Amino acid sequence: MPQLSQKTTNNLIIQAASGQASSRPPVWMMRQAGRYLPEYQAVRAKAGSFLNLCKNPELAAEVSIQPYEILGVDAIIMFSDILVIPEAMGVHLDFDQGGPKFREPIRTAAQIDSLQTLSRTELETKCDFVYKTLDTIQLKLKSGESVLSAASPDKLKNSELGVAPVLGFAGAPWTLASYMIEGGGSKNFTEIKRMMYREPKLMHSLLEKLSATVIEYLSLKVEHGAAMLQLFDTWASVLDRADYNDFALPYQQMIISELKRRHPATPIALYINGVRNVFDLMIDSGANVLSIDWRMDLAEAFRLLAKLAPGAKLTLQGNLDPCHLLGSRDFVRQRTLEMLSAASIGRELGYGYIANLGHGIIPEVSVDSARAFIETVQRA
Amino acid sequence: MPQLSQKTTNNLIIQAASGQASSRPPVWMMRQAGRYLPEYQAVRAKAGSFLNLCKNPELAAEVSIQPYEILGVDAIIMFSDILVIPEAMGVHLDFDQGGPKFREPIRTAAQIDSLQTLSRTELETKCDFVYKTLDTIQLKLKSGESVLSAASPDKLKNSELGVAPVLGFAGAPWTLASYMIEGGGSKNFTEIKRMMYREPKLMHSLLEKLSATVIEYLSLKVEHGAAMLQLFDTWASVLDRADYNDFALPYQQMIISELKRRHPATPIALYINGVRNVFDLMIDSGANVLSIDWRMDLAEAFRLLAKLAPGAKLTLQGNLDPCHLLGSRDFVRQRTLEMLSAASIGRELGYGYIANLGHGIIPEVSVDSARAFIETVQRA
Repeated sequence: MPQLSQKTTNNLIIQAASGQASSRPPVWMMRQAGRYLPEYQAVRAKAGSFLNLCKNPELAAEVSIQPYEILGVDAIIMFSDILVIPEAMGVHLDFDQGGPKFREPIRTAAQIDSLQTLSRTELETKCDFVYKTLDTIQLKLKSGESVLSAASPDKLKNSELGVAPVLGFAGAPWTLASYMIEGGGSKNFTEIKRMMYREPKLMHSLLEKLSATVIEYLSLKVEHGAAMLQLFDTWASVLDRADYNDFALPYQQMIISELKRRHPATPIALYINGVRNVFDLMIDSGANVLSIDWRMDLAEAFRLLAKLAPGAKLTLQGNLDPCHLLGSRDFVRQRTLEMLSAASIGRELGYGYIANLGHGIIPEVSVDSARAFIETVQRA
Repeated sequence: MPQLSQKTTNNLIIQAASGQASSRPPVWMMRQAGRYLPEYQAVRAKAGSFLNLCKNPELAAEVSIQPYEILGVDAIIMFSDILVIPEAMGVHLDFDQGGPKFREPIRTAAQIDSLQTLSRTELETKCDFVYKTLDTIQLKLKSGESVLSAASPDKLKNSELGVAPVLGFAGAPWTLASYMIEGGGSKNFTEIKRMMYREPKLMHSLLEKLSATVIEYLSLKVEHGAAMLQLFDTWASVLDRADYNDFALPYQQMIISELKRRHPATPIALYINGVRNVFDLMIDSGANVLSIDWRMDLAEAFRLLAKLAPGAKLTLQGNLDPCHLLGSRDFVRQRTLEMLSAASIGRELGYGYIANLGHGIIPEVSVDSARAFIETVQRA
């Protein structure tokens, strides 16, 4: 079996996320265990479906580790999906070609009343595959065995790798609720907004149940070895500022403050897509790491931090347009260097920085382009 | 036949768009001739399809005037679609339930080479229905005849109306190109971005053809009575700032500067959805009216104008979340009053203001809610 090196521990990302200086920017990619990787596609085919893959700890661990071995990223984010929480709460979930679908979208008070806030014990049972995946990732890393076949052209790279930290994640309540109420992805978010504007109390009761569940869910991830957590409030930016203040921010704060109380050493990142309108409110979330999309200027984001949170131990994460990886290697390198140049402003201002994309990597990207991105950061 | 009053001319919107003080904020709604209106649905059913309706001047004029009579909006935007330009350039267009679809998306140099920049004469032929619709709207307004049936519960309202100005519009080059290259609406805009990053010259050649065509297309609309123009670069905000600067802004500027040279008295509005990241660049477009989405704080937008363009004759348009119209009448009134309160900051700073939604009105909205929005502005 090919062997992973165990000589060093790669702590760059935890240092950067905790506001400590790091020798170079650490780098990983949202959705790095994903369809752009042929090795991922092979394992997913074996699992039969996306949801089966999420629920198979052995295979989920395998795809989690793949990008670490293939690309040498500085963090291993466990493969899973944010919608395992609603499913565990009793909302039937399917994935088809068009993405996630809830057969019976949540629209009524009776449905929300019947949803169960999941306790620690219930999560350990209903989401056992999540925690087993984390355990399996640790075991595989400790064993030093490669998850790649001996025939893989990338297996030789492993000897260069230190052991990288494992990240856990969850959807934030508003974003989870949007899928549950809309029944899947959405264009205008009309159904969740109708509930927000017509029945705000009902909406809040759902968001509270989700918050309490997310806290236990993520807390258990830390106990199972997650060294950093990322909360995805991906779609909360479709709200105007008043609505974001009422329906998104308080639940982010509730979750982050409780997790920081329980696990003060575990940094927490918050990701929002289209963040510019609420960037100042994102600072108020209490997250250590603010993960921003590509449309916000990174240098401006750092300058806003200096203005709004002078002296705070905060880290920005991001923010290359994932579609930039559709360009040539030279193009990817140039855009990545421009991103790093903007990031250097942040380091001068005293803030941390983690290189990443501004959203999840897309299936159309070549592995070669992803590698150009990672290598450019690591060699800059 | 019910008669429209011809006593007064409603010039509020042209005053506001030209930077003159108006007695109250004028108000209209993007996509106000749309599916939320039962009267529109009836005419569309008669036309057989969305595209048939666009191409039938009599019926298109009828639905254009409907919201003016039913809701008393301060402007009549001609019913049409931004994609009639690509279709006239020879790209076959269908509309199905999922929105617009181009059968053969534009992906190659050969396809772009074969696309024709349309001259004034060609537009007068290939888009004759557009100009006939504008002519028919004028005729109907002058005739004083209502487009509503005598049985309509709203017909009595007409006697209160002055004659409102007619607005024309077009898609901006980047947004038009995105539909042509993606083949319809898009989630990640991967195809257009691939072309931008792999073959920027090819991309620019398409954008140039579109710009030249849009100039003639809109210029003819002014000659056919459009008193104000709106350019929709709805999706340009999916670009990061560097890409926006290269691929969206120059073409907006090209179109706006030439139209202002030809028609200096005709104000031009520019709409971008998700505008916050490029708001400062939107000012550089040369548009008189900046039409912003709901996620950007309206008061902040006015304060940014004061900082970035002090003393400029500029007008903001917007920006209630269309989904706010899903709430109760009281809720709509309250949110509209909050919007107007933010707008009053702009008036104090010396800028113009036109009340509107932050994006097109959605089919799920009740006419009663739309009316609450319009009335709240007009009575404030």
